[in-house]
Amino acid sequence: MSNVEQVIAFANAHRSEHLDELRDFVTIPSVSAVPAHAADIRRAAEWLFNWIATEGGKVELIETDGSPIVWGEFTAKDPDAPSILVYGHYDVQPVDPVDLWDTDPFAPTVRGDRLYGRGASDMKAQIMAALIAVRSLVRQGELPVTVRLLFEGEEEIGSPNLAGVLTEHADRFKADVCLNPDTGMLGAELPAIRYGLRGIAYFELQLKGPARDLHSGAFGGVVHNPAQALAEIITGMHDADGRVTLPGFYDRVREIDATEKDRLARVPFGETEVRELSGVTQSWGESKFSPAERVGARPTLEINGIESGYTGPGAKTVIPATAMAKISMRLVPDQRPEEIRGQLEAYLKQHVPPTISYEIVEFAQGASFICDPTSPAHAAFSNALSEVWGVDPILSRSGGSVPVANDLQELLGIPSILTGFALPDDQVHSPNESQHLPTWYRGTEALIRFMTDFGGRRR
Amino acid sequence: MSNVEQVIAFANAHRSEHLDELRDFVTIPSVSAVPAHAADIRRAAEWLFNWIATEGGKVELIETDGSPIVWGEFTAKDPDAPSILVYGHYDVQPVDPVDLWDTDPFAPTVRGDRLYGRGASDMKAQIMAALIAVRSLVRQGELPVTVRLLFEGEEEIGSPNLAGVLTEHADRFKADVCLNPDTGMLGAELPAIRYGLRGIAYFELQLKGPARDLHSGAFGGVVHNPAQALAEIITGMHDADGRVTLPGFYDRVREIDATEKDRLARVPFGETEVRELSGVTQSWGESKFSPAERVGARPTLEINGIESGYTGPGAKTVIPATAMAKISMRLVPDQRPEEIRGQLEAYLKQHVPPTISYEIVEFAQGASFICDPTSPAHAAFSNALSEVWGVDPILSRSGGSVPVANDLQELLGIPSILTGFALPDDQVHSPNESQHLPTWYRGTEALIRFMTDFGGRRR
Repeated sequence: MSNVEQVIAFANAHRSEHLDELRDFVTIPSVSAVPAHAADIRRAAEWLFNWIATEGGKVELIETDGSPIVWGEFTAKDPDAPSILVYGHYDVQPVDPVDLWDTDPFAPTVRGDRLYGRGASDMKAQIMAALIAVRSLVRQGELPVTVRLLFEGEEEIGSPNLAGVLTEHADRFKADVCLNPDTGMLGAELPAIRYGLRGIAYFELQLKGPARDLHSGAFGGVVHNPAQALAEIITGMHDADGRVTLPGFYDRVREIDATEKDRLARVPFGETEVRELSGVTQSWGESKFSPAERVGARPTLEINGIESGYTGPGAKTVIPATAMAKISMRLVPDQRPEEIRGQLEAYLKQHVPPTISYEIVEFAQGASFICDPTSPAHAAFSNALSEVWGVDPILSRSGGSVPVANDLQELLGIPSILTGFALPDDQVHSPNESQHLPTWYRGTEALIRFMTDFGGRRR
Repeated sequence: MSNVEQVIAFANAHRSEHLDELRDFVTIPSVSAVPAHAADIRRAAEWLFNWIATEGGKVELIETDGSPIVWGEFTAKDPDAPSILVYGHYDVQPVDPVDLWDTDPFAPTVRGDRLYGRGASDMKAQIMAALIAVRSLVRQGELPVTVRLLFEGEEEIGSPNLAGVLTEHADRFKADVCLNPDTGMLGAELPAIRYGLRGIAYFELQLKGPARDLHSGAFGGVVHNPAQALAEIITGMHDADGRVTLPGFYDRVREIDATEKDRLARVPFGETEVRELSGVTQSWGESKFSPAERVGARPTLEINGIESGYTGPGAKTVIPATAMAKISMRLVPDQRPEEIRGQLEAYLKQHVPPTISYEIVEFAQGASFICDPTSPAHAAFSNALSEVWGVDPILSRSGGSVPVANDLQELLGIPSILTGFALPDDQVHSPNESQHLPTWYRGTEALIRFMTDFGGRRR
């Protein structure tokens, strides 16, 4: 039996203890959004602190204005060994509506193949898989990589203190790559790595027409209705093929090359999946691109909300004085979020009619993220997944955002492997969240293989 | 002194008593929208009943499911005398916000040239002007016309029982013309007659896209956003010149002939007035038509309200599942309100994309109204106004609706003279409503002249 097989055998032999540990961790109601759980948040951080200390790791709680960040390190003996930063968050989503839970969200319960409890899948099991991989490697011989740990307690409330800590303690978080197991698999037999994320720019557009709401009989036909003007402005933001018309919007958009086209063609997100997952009767968007390309590698402009005039029951014959739209753009490399407002303003200067005045308010700005899915670290991780699942992982680009991946890239120059062992039906953020345990065990094995393989690839 | 001058002299000699009567009438808080005022509503009806009975008129309270309708008649001796139906409503608007009133809305107070109180202008003074004209004619000799009276107590809540009473008691309301003094003047020196009103059709359009609100990162670019689809559908409802694009919408629209063009050119509602009255920086609409023509004689389509997705403070990255618009059309002769839904449906069939499903709900339907402003009754009334004010009245078409005018036209075949002695700055429906008393006295004189003149024009 090779060394890696022994390590895996060790991990497999102790599944029952590992499950007990995970269950204990999930028992802590570390809900970051609810101030009454502040002590539980600290308890979860201390639980991790104790675990790491007991296993012989270096560990420290870095205090912030909010929850502490758990820093830790298991050091490879070889000073030339590569380093991995494992990211995780020990906070969990609120449990409301608690009536819909079949069992107490903080009395974790095994039913069938799953462990039910808030935070089981998102992401306490993911943290534990990484820690158990490290422990198994340490106990069965030598740790082939230096593993640094970054566990925050505020991910579910937007990580308000993370960037500050990363900047202030940059030296402690240095690593060749970050392993971020917060994005999950595409199915129980479909391991996945996300290598790109979209950025965002979010605005509110406020239109003003008449000085006050007007009687639609007295003024219908002689004033430009702001609700109609808003419709016209919104309509002009896309062409007939679903392309965004803001001036310069596509200037910096990176083309999808042939390799990437092939890669994204494997992502199981086509016309059928769009229909099944969203409930629409047919998909929509730029016809030149597949759904996986449109969501992952193409920028979009979305109307997130609109409001104008009378919206209550029945009829009111009013011409509204104002109209409002929430408008956000999902951005891809190499678009710059700080340029989008100017593009929006240029569009509005051209398209807002002289009958209407307007203001825009900016709410959010975030860069897109991309890293090379063929880097040595990604290759090693990809191999590990292939060995365990018997299929190559799906390499995809996600339509949403993972701010920590951007922060690590921008502040510390560390690329991320976005992955994990959550499944699409784990009900994360919903009642009856659970972790699929066979997948968790396989994930632990994959992590052992990854650390071993990546450790073997000396820098 | 001719007979009519004697009658006017009588009316003028008793202004003080007439003002006391009006003040007494305004004291009654006959607010139809507030159930607690039900007894006051009846008190106002009985006040009118007593007034008419005291003056020797026939009078009756016609009970309905709501407020009673006061019917009355002062009969001309000459059986061939023409007949006039005087319409009025004795109910008044609520007084909220009562803090903004300088004096108690039901303790009517004279300040300067005005009597302040709720309902003073809208429309107790208008009812009293007509009654005082009748009394003056009766007391000073012979009533030259038969005057029938129709005073309802539910105008401010949509006249739910009026059409029923008109149908059931059609014979009591017969007349050559209805005098409806509920629309007012265009200025203290600008008497006016409205001879046309727009009709209405009012709909709610509900769009459905995805089965539920979606994450705009996960689905932005692959599903058609219902808020955007709504914008596209609304935008297509007008062409670049502000013409409505519903199929067949203009097919029955009566052209504005040269006579009418000249007439409407006198209406003081041009570019300047539109800006001043609405607070817009420039007017909008069909460029071939003047503002007075666009509001009075052209149909329109207005967006009265829209709502979709997230409309609270800040940002939410959602693709809405649904979108809603309230859409109403103002109609002119000879459009048929019952055909508009079909035109809307035809438009939607062409323009709602296959990515979206929709439903429409119909809230209201009302016909437009037009009568000949050169009829003998209108000519007599017009002459009377000219004699008192020294200028020809403005003949205009109003953009709004007066349902009773339609009901009388459709149910009883009676045309209406829409007029009155309220001024644009009377603050009707607002705090500190008042009646301009010099205008009220001139109005009473005009009514005496009208009844005399019209009575002289034997049928």
